[in-house]
Amino acid sequence: MTLGQIGVVRPQRMRFTTPLPLRSGAQLAQYELVFETYGQLNARRDNAVLVCHALNASHHLAGTYEGEDKSEGWWDNLIGPGKPLDTDKFFVIGINNLGSCFGSTGPMHVNPETGRIYGADFPVVTVQDWVDAQARVVEALGITQLAAVLGGSLGGMQALDWSLRYPDRLRHCIAIATAPSLSAQNIAFNEVARRAIITDPDFHGGHFYAQGVVPKRGLRVARMIGHITYLSDDVMEQKFGRQMRAAELGYSTQDIEFQIESYLRHQGDKFSNYFDANTYLLITRALDYFDPAREHGGDLSRTFASATCKFLLTSFSTDWRFSPARSREIVKALLDNKLDVSYAEIDAPHGHDAFLLDDPRYHGLLRAYFERIAQAFEEAAP
Amino acid sequence: MTLGQIGVVRPQRMRFTTPLPLRSGAQLAQYELVFETYGQLNARRDNAVLVCHALNASHHLAGTYEGEDKSEGWWDNLIGPGKPLDTDKFFVIGINNLGSCFGSTGPMHVNPETGRIYGADFPVVTVQDWVDAQARVVEALGITQLAAVLGGSLGGMQALDWSLRYPDRLRHCIAIATAPSLSAQNIAFNEVARRAIITDPDFHGGHFYAQGVVPKRGLRVARMIGHITYLSDDVMEQKFGRQMRAAELGYSTQDIEFQIESYLRHQGDKFSNYFDANTYLLITRALDYFDPAREHGGDLSRTFASATCKFLLTSFSTDWRFSPARSREIVKALLDNKLDVSYAEIDAPHGHDAFLLDDPRYHGLLRAYFERIAQAFEEAAP
Repeated sequence: MTLGQIGVVRPQRMRFTTPLPLRSGAQLAQYELVFETYGQLNARRDNAVLVCHALNASHHLAGTYEGEDKSEGWWDNLIGPGKPLDTDKFFVIGINNLGSCFGSTGPMHVNPETGRIYGADFPVVTVQDWVDAQARVVEALGITQLAAVLGGSLGGMQALDWSLRYPDRLRHCIAIATAPSLSAQNIAFNEVARRAIITDPDFHGGHFYAQGVVPKRGLRVARMIGHITYLSDDVMEQKFGRQMRAAELGYSTQDIEFQIESYLRHQGDKFSNYFDANTYLLITRALDYFDPAREHGGDLSRTFASATCKFLLTSFSTDWRFSPARSREIVKALLDNKLDVSYAEIDAPHGHDAFLLDDPRYHGLLRAYFERIAQAFEEAAP
Repeated sequence: MTLGQIGVVRPQRMRFTTPLPLRSGAQLAQYELVFETYGQLNARRDNAVLVCHALNASHHLAGTYEGEDKSEGWWDNLIGPGKPLDTDKFFVIGINNLGSCFGSTGPMHVNPETGRIYGADFPVVTVQDWVDAQARVVEALGITQLAAVLGGSLGGMQALDWSLRYPDRLRHCIAIATAPSLSAQNIAFNEVARRAIITDPDFHGGHFYAQGVVPKRGLRVARMIGHITYLSDDVMEQKFGRQMRAAELGYSTQDIEFQIESYLRHQGDKFSNYFDANTYLLITRALDYFDPAREHGGDLSRTFASATCKFLLTSFSTDWRFSPARSREIVKALLDNKLDVSYAEIDAPHGHDAFLLDDPRYHGLLRAYFERIAQAFEEAAP
């Protein structure tokens, strides 16, 4: 088995001029989506896997950019020749979601109707809107049915939505470290992060671009909160514990005393230099709103009555943001509908972040599952 | 059994002109402490209980203030005639800690050495400094030995410190929902809250008083983060879940959609109107620094070798801020020293907040423990 690298990749763009109706009632008259593909679409066009991204990721799943060091895609450990999602077998697609700050139409772009940067006027987008937009790209690529839709966290919600609303367009839904909806605590963390951004004087009601400033204070705090919830208490204790920066206490409320403070500040600083504040608001809101059972009186079993594909659900024991209990709710709803579902609860110490790491049991599971998918279309091939 | 009210109480002040040396190396040349007492000190002066306060509380434990509605002390459900800490039997003392914003000398006061408001120049204070200051008040009240020192959360840390450094001055240490030190995750939450305050442009490096402003944005975010960690995931789900404010979604990133958002914003607003930003920094830092085992090579068992009093430790099953596991660390260290220790792990849904609520098992336990203490001094009385 060779674990080759994908090598240099290039993002592509697709422009849409058919208006996209959004859940909010608004619509986008025209928009562009940036995407990347890896591997080859086979003759039967039945080996395509769509990978949906979560909060701060993008269409750049794997490979590197020409002349850019450390430009590996965010799921490069999973996707490539001989890797669990094997690009020698699968045609893998990553699409940057609407409202993102990594190339697809979003708040940093000019609103063609006003000639001004959207900023806070960019319409609120939902998981369903993203999926609708993704479906158009998939269609434009000539793919009638995806072998699988795969996603972790917010990406997992998109995969679930595909199974509910486009049941004929996928054969497998692979939803990792996700939930059927956010809990009150999840929403609470999102709301604190949003308040930090919105109340930053440099936010200017979401129209800070024209002022030549960025609400970095708010973005830093938002990212610090996020990082705490991505890691488990245990792994934070193992990695940082009460390690001091210096041998002696400095007795200061403002200077860094503990290594965990240094780590969080660094993560916050980094994030505030590349992430868009309006995008952060939009994406956390999409998370809050996702709740497919809402239209079914809160009954998740009834919700999944429309699904027909096969499912793989995976959760991680120490993930307190999207705990195994939330995945089990989905598994139960799927079983209530007599759907084909595999579920693995992986005992990993890394909290929610585990879905991005290459724990051998986790990657082994995905490898086996994708091999089974590949077997089916390889056998069907003439 | 009568559960009477204490009625109207009045805070008292004590002024100290003997300098207080602080752990940081600085010293306070002079300072005032505000305190309240409830019940009567008996002839043998052996029925006094000191109650230590946590982050946003004060010396005002019980009773009300003349002409002020809703001015009940923060532990009024526990302390009073016929209540678990029965003021018909005990003389109860509440002292506002140094650096607080509720009357004792703190950052809002004038530094006599400069004639200007301390602000960020107020020296960093530690749990040990607070306990040293409390010990002077207790001494000035003519009390050689306290029947008990009681505290929850940060107050529990003070109670533990009394047992370690003033072993002859107390017969019982009652430490509730506390920990022998903060975990990396605890410190992380404190640090995010501090950054929110310090990076608020209205903080002005901690000298905002002269500017006539208050860093309310930062205080709001800090308090919202705090509130998330005080409640359990479960109780938040039961109380708020995904309840919407309106029947229909508003599709807004800035307006309130979920009741949990409304609750958190309200708590943040309220807090930002009464709490001092510099005090918040000082108190969270005192929490971070508390780590009595540090001077004993991290060995908690060796740390408690100096203790001689009896202990009651209590924790709550759903408290993820100061989990039962942290209390058990202390219990183990006490048992290693063959100390007399009672420990109760109470199955309560309310998270860290449970220590302030009147769960019947919890209050029943405290009542029984205090009755046993009272019995001892009542039998000793002539």
